[in-house]
Amino acid sequence: MKNANELIPLKIIASGIALPEKKVYSSDLDLKLNKPNGFVEKHSGIEYRYHADYETPPTKLATDALHNTLETHQISPDSIDLLISASAVPIQALPYSAAHILKASRLTAGTACFDINASCVSFISALDVAGGLLATRRYRRIAIVSAEMASRGIDWSHQESSLIFGDGAACMIVERGDGQSGIVTHKHETYPEGLALCEIRAGGTRKNLRTGMEESDFLFQMQGKPLFKLTASLIEAFNARVLASANLKMSDIDTVIPHQASHLGLKHILKRLNIKNDRFVNIYRHRGNQVAASIPSALHEAIITDRYYGRDYVMLLGTAAGLSLSEMILRP
Amino acid sequence: MKNANELIPLKIIASGIALPEKKVYSSDLDLKLNKPNGFVEKHSGIEYRYHADYETPPTKLATDALHNTLETHQISPDSIDLLISASAVPIQALPYSAAHILKASRLTAGTACFDINASCVSFISALDVAGGLLATRRYRRIAIVSAEMASRGIDWSHQESSLIFGDGAACMIVERGDGQSGIVTHKHETYPEGLALCEIRAGGTRKNLRTGMEESDFLFQMQGKPLFKLTASLIEAFNARVLASANLKMSDIDTVIPHQASHLGLKHILKRLNIKNDRFVNIYRHRGNQVAASIPSALHEAIITDRYYGRDYVMLLGTAAGLSLSEMILRP
Repeated sequence: MKNANELIPLKIIASGIALPEKKVYSSDLDLKLNKPNGFVEKHSGIEYRYHADYETPPTKLATDALHNTLETHQISPDSIDLLISASAVPIQALPYSAAHILKASRLTAGTACFDINASCVSFISALDVAGGLLATRRYRRIAIVSAEMASRGIDWSHQESSLIFGDGAACMIVERGDGQSGIVTHKHETYPEGLALCEIRAGGTRKNLRTGMEESDFLFQMQGKPLFKLTASLIEAFNARVLASANLKMSDIDTVIPHQASHLGLKHILKRLNIKNDRFVNIYRHRGNQVAASIPSALHEAIITDRYYGRDYVMLLGTAAGLSLSEMILRP
Repeated sequence: MKNANELIPLKIIASGIALPEKKVYSSDLDLKLNKPNGFVEKHSGIEYRYHADYETPPTKLATDALHNTLETHQISPDSIDLLISASAVPIQALPYSAAHILKASRLTAGTACFDINASCVSFISALDVAGGLLATRRYRRIAIVSAEMASRGIDWSHQESSLIFGDGAACMIVERGDGQSGIVTHKHETYPEGLALCEIRAGGTRKNLRTGMEESDFLFQMQGKPLFKLTASLIEAFNARVLASANLKMSDIDTVIPHQASHLGLKHILKRLNIKNDRFVNIYRHRGNQVAASIPSALHEAIITDRYYGRDYVMLLGTAAGLSLSEMILRP
């Protein structure tokens, strides 16, 4: 095993997910969008995804994932000394989402909390930050929650993006551990030439009551082809830099956990980075793109299907609105 | 000097601020709001604050503060290996503000970045996170930028809150340093019973096109009296816990840098925490409440007026929408 001396200690001690009740089958969307039977499944690669009703409180998925994780692993809510909300889209402009989640949760009033946002790779940034804070020994047990209700921003008039999003949440609880597990390497690179290729323009100081806004500013806007082109031009060299920083090869990675961006995006990553299919965690067909909740949801899937603990190296990998690329290699 | 052995190494190597061009005098607001001459200054404690025109790009103050800091201290933009945006209100719902700031800045494409949000105490959380990341030696030089355009969310029909906000930005560049300076202690506590006392409800998954929204959801809403009452009930014991964690007394603190929340809030903190007036950094009269930009702007003021370097202990201190309390004691 390489790199043991450079590990940033971090141990995932518990994980869990949450999904809304309502499954939206691609055949339901064929009807909604006046498409022939089978059209949406063929174009999206999704059989069904989950969408929360508009009445569902915006904290519901986050607290469900958090509470499921605490209950399943019999962890006392009092033992969490920091809550990090790591989602792409906030609950509201002010205050931050972690305070909302804290309020709706069983965690103790007074618990420290903040949000981290790096769009779809927020969870990776949050793990990196948790590794740093655990290194200072100021915190001992950190809960990271990524929760998204992407269905509330779907532009149903835009075929490509309207088919792919699903709602959901995931929670990971991390500690310093015994130093045998942790972060081997992490890189995050942002290329803002791609900033406008993936966005929701309203929500803050740019488009609002004072500066002017229209309906489309509240909906997810994507320019698929240039986004794919920019990502494709960057991903191989980026991945090579990450592997080189850890003195590893792709074949050393036992499990790859990608952001579940799209059907074609996943295929592209698999092929371009020479990943073996049986090492690649793909939950897209029954979840869709859950924005920042995708990576920790897929990590949870790897954990419960025995593809995390006991392995030598696990890679988290995603591209995100920004345009950002992020990879982390973990020793489980 | 106490606590040297527990320091989390962190050195502020450069700082700077930015303000919009337009000064808004309280006498201007007397006219705008049909009040007698002197009314707004008397009720707000502000002579003037700065408001950006609605045409100003939402990244302008952030990049001005960043570039001012780099230029004044002759720091190469290439040498920044992480940009943290630490503001309360985002630029838009997706993607995150740091990517927008990176795009408008002279920093190198590919620079790592993310947002941290803990409403008005975001900068303190960002310093804490920077201390952790510097401890892992993954980053060497981190730029933290807090920038706010609060004027875009003012509810002019709400007298109390409409008078106090000013726009602005501040930047701090931090490194690990030689271990002689750093974070002595930090506590952040969130009491979400106060969540709704200070908010902008639109901007994310709670109030939007799908779930319904109205004009007031885009404007800053504050319930001043219950907010003051809740803060007053918590602040003394919180401050005592922070000081006790570092084995310090208030009289050991050479400079106190509070969030510039309001005229009366500042008076209250000064009195209740037994702070000497000449140790208390107050820039409120000519800035107003600059949301998350207040604390780093006041810290910059302390630095350029010789109340930071060479001192033994400096305290950052704020209460924030959440309701969150945050304090950090630094060895400069």
